[in-house]
Amino acid sequence: MAEAKVLSGAGLRGQVAGQTALCTVGKEGAGLTYRGYDVRDLAEHCCFEEVAYLLFHGELPNAEQLAAYQARLHQWRDLPDVLKEVLERAPSNAHPMDVIRTACSVMGMLEPEQDFSQQQDRADRLVAMAPSVMAYWYRFSHGGQRINCNSDEATLGGHFLALLHGRKPSELEVKVMNVSLILYAEHEFNASTFTARVCASTLSDIYSCVTGAVGSLRGPLHGGANEAAMELIQRFNTPEEAREGLLGMLERKEKIMGFGHAIYRESDPRNEVIKEWAKKLADTVGDTKLYPISVAIDETMWEQKKLFPNADFYHASAYHFMGIPTPLFTPIFVCSRLVGWCSHVFEQRANNRIIRPSAEYIGPEQRKVVPIDQR
Amino acid sequence: MAEAKVLSGAGLRGQVAGQTALCTVGKEGAGLTYRGYDVRDLAEHCCFEEVAYLLFHGELPNAEQLAAYQARLHQWRDLPDVLKEVLERAPSNAHPMDVIRTACSVMGMLEPEQDFSQQQDRADRLVAMAPSVMAYWYRFSHGGQRINCNSDEATLGGHFLALLHGRKPSELEVKVMNVSLILYAEHEFNASTFTARVCASTLSDIYSCVTGAVGSLRGPLHGGANEAAMELIQRFNTPEEAREGLLGMLERKEKIMGFGHAIYRESDPRNEVIKEWAKKLADTVGDTKLYPISVAIDETMWEQKKLFPNADFYHASAYHFMGIPTPLFTPIFVCSRLVGWCSHVFEQRANNRIIRPSAEYIGPEQRKVVPIDQR
Ligand SMILES: CC(C)(COP(=O)(O)OP(=O)(O)OC[C@H]1O[C@@H](n2cnc3c(N)ncnc32)[C@H](O)[C@@H]1OP(=O)(O)O)[C@@H](O)C(=O)NCCC(=O)NCCS
Ligand SMILES: CC(C)(COP(=O)(O)OP(=O)(O)OC[C@H]1O[C@@H](n2cnc3c(N)ncnc32)[C@H](O)[C@@H]1OP(=O)(O)O)[C@@H](O)C(=O)NCCC(=O)NCCS
Repeated sequence: MAEAKVLSGAGLRGQVAGQTALCTVGKEGAGLTYRGYDVRDLAEHCCFEEVAYLLFHGELPNAEQLAAYQARLHQWRDLPDVLKEVLERAPSNAHPMDVIRTACSVMGMLEPEQDFSQQQDRADRLVAMAPSVMAYWYRFSHGGQRINCNSDEATLGGHFLALLHGRKPSELEVKVMNVSLILYAEHEFNASTFTARVCASTLSDIYSCVTGAVGSLRGPLHGGANEAAMELIQRFNTPEEAREGLLGMLERKEKIMGFGHAIYRESDPRNEVIKEWAKKLADTVGDTKLYPISVAIDETMWEQKKLFPNADFYHASAYHFMGIPTPLFTPIFVCSRLVGWCSHVFEQRANNRIIRPSAEYIGPEQRKVVPIDQR
Repeated sequence: MAEAKVLSGAGLRGQVAGQTALCTVGKEGAGLTYRGYDVRDLAEHCCFEEVAYLLFHGELPNAEQLAAYQARLHQWRDLPDVLKEVLERAPSNAHPMDVIRTACSVMGMLEPEQDFSQQQDRADRLVAMAPSVMAYWYRFSHGGQRINCNSDEATLGGHFLALLHGRKPSELEVKVMNVSLILYAEHEFNASTFTARVCASTLSDIYSCVTGAVGSLRGPLHGGANEAAMELIQRFNTPEEAREGLLGMLERKEKIMGFGHAIYRESDPRNEVIKEWAKKLADTVGDTKLYPISVAIDETMWEQKKLFPNADFYHASAYHFMGIPTPLFTPIFVCSRLVGWCSHVFEQRANNRIIRPSAEYIGPEQRKVVPIDQR
């Protein structure tokens, strides 16, 4: 029974559930690599579209390939009219992850994947349009505007900011969005990606896989953590207050969102990158509150629990400094992770067996139905 | 490496991914049990609503509890107007599983689960309304009618048939629907249920879990098999032709949908039940073709491959004899399995750790980004 207990509810931690050529997480001190490249190297030298191309096709594009890929994504930014009609019917207080999950599902009806030869087209279409989905719904539900879903921004990150704010984003903002999308693009067998692979293993269509993945990313233990981190940071007025508050929360054994990780043990390599950019943004917008409070929380967590910030923690303040409303934090994660999800779907399809584990039974012994009038 | 190879792509077969008190599949010759009751016993003596109550609450209801539960489901059969508007915008040639997946997702926006104390309400609501979703969309897209989503049928199965056909179903039809819904209600850690549990493990909302599960059930290796079985059966005109055709397919190593199982090795206990009802329906409608062809395929598969029909195979002809269009077969499976999915979500939440397995890395070694103009 002891052995059974260890297994139960243990979330398959450390159990190999399949193969991947996409990504390593926490392997031999290598931090996080996409197709062999350190994510920090990619974040420094590449744009998000380059990284998407890398994940999908296995190699970084040359200049010509990148230009072609960007043009391809550009043409697919606008949304079908029916989808706009659905988005206009979403309540203005809807959870944005419910909206983007619904949009993915609706697209599966409007532009179905007829067979797997269309998988790359469908994946690129979703990547190209996801920022428009969020901006269109947000601007319509919070201001009644039917925005134009095209922009002349070259990058997806810039495009999102342009649609959301209705103005040209600054160079720094575009840069940070780019870095952020790279950091979030792929992360091996995390819960949402694993959801996509389980779905793919039934040979279902790519929209089903992605829709399911969005649903998993929505959870506060997963993508939802960046929003929860923001709410935490905003609860405090000074670093001292934050430290006090944290100590209380830890004493009450509350979970602190944006900290800890299922695989990393000492640090999350994405954190050092986004923390640096959050700092730059803080300096630029003249923040003297949120960033110092974030640092105080960070230091207190390490000091008290040896828990380190994961990718989500400093993303919260970084996004905030760019004027992004908190409820849109996790949807931006979607815009990026779509690439990882779809790459995993392709990989699962290429070498598939239906994912169907077993369960340990802990229910009642066999019994016989008693007629209802004798119960 | 040999060991790694065995694990890879092996679909977690035989690996314990968690605990359940809901169901046993293929355990010590016990076939299939829900909360300790043999599914054949339940199919013979209970109605679907009784079984749903059992799965949700752990015990079979007494007469009073059952009446209260049926009344509860009854009141929730109608659909919100916004959902109807979305359904009216679904293309008439949409895959019905895309439609029901979208409907689940839309409901997550319209009647969100604010916190887990609402989980039973939301689950019952979904169970109550799922048949209306399919019938409303089908009748609107295939005839332009906006049907009334209420009926005075006492059972969910009868309700579905009444809405779909616009006439009172026969006693035999109601009985078969009831049995079918019981057989499909729950099946341990199958791919769609596992999808729901992975999603639940992030502490996401119940609509996300269910939406993802629908997407997985859509796959032809999973729920989609009953539709594929129908297409197969209808390809042939005589049992002899079916036998010939099968031999050819097996020689070409094609998969025969509706046969085989990830866990069962000798037979699927649900098959004997639905096969008997399919036979009764065949006799009633005076069929002398589809049922005999089904039997010929069944016998050939056993003789040639020792593969047995799973739950899906005779469901195909049974549904067909009730006048149900083939594309609605898998959605009926949804109407039933919703109970299993939601029960598993509750169970996962009650003892949770995020489900996050590892992967075996088979990609390139670490490498450095080369500047784009040197690629
Ligand atoms: C990411 C996470 C889900 C990993 O879960 P996990 O693999 O089950 O976590 P671990 O096994 O490493 O947890 C070890 C211990 O640290 C605690 N712990 C982990 N993260 C914690 C956090 N953020 N705050 C407080 N305590 C935490 C756990 O409760 C556990 O304590 P216990 O042994 O007393 O139960 C978890 O760290 C978490 O919930 N973090 C907050 C949510 C978040 O930021 N998610 C985004 C991930 S990118
Ligand atoms: C259900 C199913 C997905 C289980 O998959 P699985 O656990 O990987 O299957 P197994 O490991 O038991 O398969 C053993 C062998 O039988 C073969 N086999 C299994 N089901 C088969 C079928 N329906 N037709 C032809 N061959 C089949 C497999 O290809 C495999 O052969 P191999 O060893 O030469 O590759 C599989 O049987 C299948 O695809 N069936 C058809 C779809 C279906 O009816 N699904 C509904 C399930 S309720």
